[in-house]
Amino acid sequence: MPRYAFRIEYHGTGFSGWQRQRDRPSIQGAVEAALARLAPERPVIAAAGRTDAGVHAWGQVAHVDLARDWDPFRLSEALNYHLKPAAIAVTACAQVDETFHARFSATGRRYLFRIVTRRAPLTHDRGRAWALRAPLDADAMQKAADRLLGTHDFTTFRSSMCQAASPIKTLDRLEVETRDYPGGAEIRLHVAARSFLHNQVRSFAGTLERVGSGAWRVEDVAAALVARDRAACGPVAPPEGLYLAAVTYPSDPFTT
Amino acid sequence: MPRYAFRIEYHGTGFSGWQRQRDRPSIQGAVEAALARLAPERPVIAAAGRTDAGVHAWGQVAHVDLARDWDPFRLSEALNYHLKPAAIAVTACAQVDETFHARFSATGRRYLFRIVTRRAPLTHDRGRAWALRAPLDADAMQKAADRLLGTHDFTTFRSSMCQAASPIKTLDRLEVETRDYPGGAEIRLHVAARSFLHNQVRSFAGTLERVGSGAWRVEDVAAALVARDRAACGPVAPPEGLYLAAVTYPSDPFTT
Repeated sequence: MPRYAFRIEYHGTGFSGWQRQRDRPSIQGAVEAALARLAPERPVIAAAGRTDAGVHAWGQVAHVDLARDWDPFRLSEALNYHLKPAAIAVTACAQVDETFHARFSATGRRYLFRIVTRRAPLTHDRGRAWALRAPLDADAMQKAADRLLGTHDFTTFRSSMCQAASPIKTLDRLEVETRDYPGGAEIRLHVAARSFLHNQVRSFAGTLERVGSGAWRVEDVAAALVARDRAACGPVAPPEGLYLAAVTYPSDPFTT
Repeated sequence: MPRYAFRIEYHGTGFSGWQRQRDRPSIQGAVEAALARLAPERPVIAAAGRTDAGVHAWGQVAHVDLARDWDPFRLSEALNYHLKPAAIAVTACAQVDETFHARFSATGRRYLFRIVTRRAPLTHDRGRAWALRAPLDADAMQKAADRLLGTHDFTTFRSSMCQAASPIKTLDRLEVETRDYPGGAEIRLHVAARSFLHNQVRSFAGTLERVGSGAWRVEDVAAALVARDRAACGPVAPPEGLYLAAVTYPSDPFTT
């Protein structure tokens, strides 16, 4: 059976997350329902990262095995047709060989976490960023972020529901970018690793917010990390700021 | 009576435009209703630009006269409180002297028009950009845009409903910026002038799209301009791509 990889973009508001659920709208459920219109065998898809309720994606990757051969372009067009009017779109599609696995072949994941700090409520970016009313000290946040880089036991920043075999991960990038924003400022966290623990990026964002607001010192983050204790973590940031930006593979399936 | 200026941001989807209407939700109506909660005299506001239905703003400016004195910060906080849950926010507020008029004191207006070209439907940017399925030649669009710069009779690019006394305007900037966009490209038109005719920016966008798609040559735009004939214009682009980005004054009322 030919295997296809998809790059999938979605606005997560109103979805219970990636994973298919019996009674609630999910991204996986919507994509599989669209596939079922094309493939009577009702194929099941596998994704690089199972995003939580309300989390967005620009570059989720999934794969599926289909009974018949499809031209990848026509397959993505047909899927987008059947996905309407959901805020989910297939933005790239390629046939891949049977050794490709969206999750297990992935060698890197990039997340973006958006924070907007201003007094006024958000309009264009409502549900698209974590809205905070007080400014944050981005320099202090970057100093704290630097303490998290590298290979560590990230138990502190791991949801109690995390199913990963090991809490040891290598954080390759945690960059705090500041942008102008009308009436305030936007802070973007750029986060990259081979893989992440459940809630790791939102735990980072919530903890770095504590530093940015002055409630925590940089040293408190370093201490939280070495504590290896979930109770030492800052609050978990809300899902609406989080975007799965990209998934990388040894060779990009979408540019060949 | 003290006069106050506001910078107002809004997501125009679902509104009939800036101007108050009896039976339909408008931005002006929503802001005036919020003001009426604070000021029993039911003040009327005047705006720099009366945007059409579905058009957005990052930097609309309006002014109002109030019977009592307000601290500008507390006034903006109170307005934002009463504006909820509408996607309208006051992002700056200042007391100004009685000679300030949001519309007549303005010395410049900047608009942004966003176009996203890709096969897949939009998710995050649905209703936030003009979605086109075919790529556009931005270089050709810029060449055509350059032919519109300067002082001209812009009758071709003027709505038949335009109430301006004269069709002669000076276009200071019409820049075509290209950005990466997942699965395609984004084209941003940056447009600046002292003032605009009704539908002028959307008429530019629709006409430049004709050039970018190859349907029109650069020379056709120059010919359309000199024709001074509404029938020579390209199609008017839809409102969801248009943002009133900023209004400028001899001295910025919000940074003093």
